[in-house]
Amino acid sequence: MPGTALSDRLKALLDRPVFVVVGTIQPDGSPQLSPVWVMREGDHILFSTTADRRKRKNLDRDPRVSVVVQDPESPYEYAEIRGTAELTTEGGPELIDELSLKYTGKKYAEFNPAAAQDAERVVVRVVPRKVVGTL
Amino acid sequence: MPGTALSDRLKALLDRPVFVVVGTIQPDGSPQLSPVWVMREGDHILFSTTADRRKRKNLDRDPRVSVVVQDPESPYEYAEIRGTAELTTEGGPELIDELSLKYTGKKYAEFNPAAAQDAERVVVRVVPRKVVGTL
Repeated sequence: MPGTALSDRLKALLDRPVFVVVGTIQPDGSPQLSPVWVMREGDHILFSTTADRRKRKNLDRDPRVSVVVQDPESPYEYAEIRGTAELTTEGGPELIDELSLKYTGKKYAEFNPAAAQDAERVVVRVVPRKVVGTL
Repeated sequence: MPGTALSDRLKALLDRPVFVVVGTIQPDGSPQLSPVWVMREGDHILFSTTADRRKRKNLDRDPRVSVVVQDPESPYEYAEIRGTAELTTEGGPELIDELSLKYTGKKYAEFNPAAAQDAERVVVRVVPRKVVGTL
């Protein structure tokens, strides 16, 4: 799926260690939100979760996803990126380390030693369909 | 509806000028997210929108709503507040001014002169059903 293009400003923002909020759909059809770390690959947005988390279960059932990002220095500039999630466990351990280095400067096991007990890491790739907002 | 109680830490955070992200459900059942200003009344969370916005149309059709807030000084502390939205136009102009003073120090017409052309202001009251996260 090629998906929609992100603007250069939005790409630059996503390349910084900004927290974004991800929205998924609960089994009863209501919204579920959580903050995540992200990285960008072209026009795709990648985040990490674990096999046992609500987000992953929701996206397995309904891959429709939305991501909101705000510019911390200019909070009235934001984008909502609506798209479809593609899930895989391939590259799961590598992605969480890459994200942890981007956001904390440390490997994930060093930042969060309790993570050794985590369930298997899942890579979520958001393929954008539509971008709303000012970025 | 009495709803669920918020913790003291969560209340204190919501009383600061923090941006939160609100999630609603689109007509096709997919998630829709946007950043908003909020204020708190007891355990309820109030935000403002306008009659013609997507959020309002979505909440009119399906009042299930979710709100995520992160502590800007400690971003791994967050709460997701899931609940039900109650909408009214009563007090709409007063709420947007109160929010604008909280977040910008100015009345809304001064902060955003273009708002004179906005559709009618709507008060959205989120009555929490469940709080997830660390706050």
